[in-house]
Amino acid sequence: MKPIPIVSIVGYSGSGKTTLVEKLIPELRKRGLRVATIKHNRHGFEVDREGKDSWRHRRAGAALTVLASPGKVAVMADTEGDPGLGELGERFVRDVDVILAEGFKKNPYPKIEVWRKAQGKEFLSRGDRALVAVAGDDPGGLAAPRFDLDDIEGIVDLIEKKVIRR
Amino acid sequence: MKPIPIVSIVGYSGSGKTTLVEKLIPELRKRGLRVATIKHNRHGFEVDREGKDSWRHRRAGAALTVLASPGKVAVMADTEGDPGLGELGERFVRDVDVILAEGFKKNPYPKIEVWRKAQGKEFLSRGDRALVAVAGDDPGGLAAPRFDLDDIEGIVDLIEKKVIRR
Repeated sequence: MKPIPIVSIVGYSGSGKTTLVEKLIPELRKRGLRVATIKHNRHGFEVDREGKDSWRHRRAGAALTVLASPGKVAVMADTEGDPGLGELGERFVRDVDVILAEGFKKNPYPKIEVWRKAQGKEFLSRGDRALVAVAGDDPGGLAAPRFDLDDIEGIVDLIEKKVIRR
Repeated sequence: MKPIPIVSIVGYSGSGKTTLVEKLIPELRKRGLRVATIKHNRHGFEVDREGKDSWRHRRAGAALTVLASPGKVAVMADTEGDPGLGELGERFVRDVDVILAEGFKKNPYPKIEVWRKAQGKEFLSRGDRALVAVAGDDPGGLAAPRFDLDDIEGIVDLIEKKVIRR
C-alpha cells in the first residue's frame, strides 16, 4: 500500500496552527479529499472521563480500550515511548487521502510553518529542506512560498501539488 | 498473523458486566497476559471535549483524529455503520494476548453471560453454542459451567483454557 501523504503544520504555541488546520480541513473536503489529523501534545491529554466504562477498563489495566457506537469509534492505548508521526500514521490511520499533523517538532515530512512577526520569535524551519510553505508573515530569505493565513485556497493548492501530488 | 482471542461478556444492563471486566483484567495481567477491551455503546459516547484541539479537528471535518503524548495515544474516528467485534479487533487492536468485549449483543465469539436471578429476566444465551460459562446465579438446564461472580480465578482459568488455549 502507498503511504498516506502527510503534511506537518509547525509553529510556536499561539501562532494559530489549530485555527489553520480547522480551515484547511473543509477546503480539502470540498475538493473531495478525506482528511485525518494527528496532534502531538508533549504534556499529555485526557480524553476519557472518570467513572465511564472505558475509564474503568483502562484503570483496571487494559493496555488498549476500544469504545464503539454506530458511526464512530474511539481507541485509547498505551504506547512505548513517544511514537513518531510516521509510526502513528501507519498504526492508526486508514482510508483517508491526506494527514494533517500538528505539534510534531522534529519530523521529516513536508512542513508548513505558521509564523507571525508579532510573536517576536525566530523562524523555526530556517534551513529545513522539508519546508514547503510559510503561512503568515514573511520571515525573509526563504525559498519556500509564503501565503497569508487566510489564503486557504492557495495553501490547499500547494498541499495538493507538493504533498498529495495528484 | 494469528487472530487475537476474544471473549465476550454479555448480560443485561446492571448485571455487573463492567465490574466483572474490571476484576478479570488484573487477574489476567497477574498471569502475564496483556489485555485489550472493546466496549459497545448502542447510544453513542463522548470522549472528546468541546474546545480541545482534537475536538476542533473533528468538528472541522476530519474523518479520523489521533491524539498522541509520550506513553499514550487516543484515536477518534468515523466508521461505516456499526462495525462488529471482529472488525474492530482487526482494525485497532495489536500487541495483546486477549480481548475482553462488552456490550456486543450478537457475536460469534466465546461468551460469558453475567446473570443474576434478582433481575427477574430471561437468561440471554440459552441455546447459544458459544456460551462458555455463566457468572452469577444458576439459570438451570445449561451445559456450560457456572462461577460465582467473585470467583475471578476460576473464570480466568476457564478463559485461559477455552479461549486463549495456551
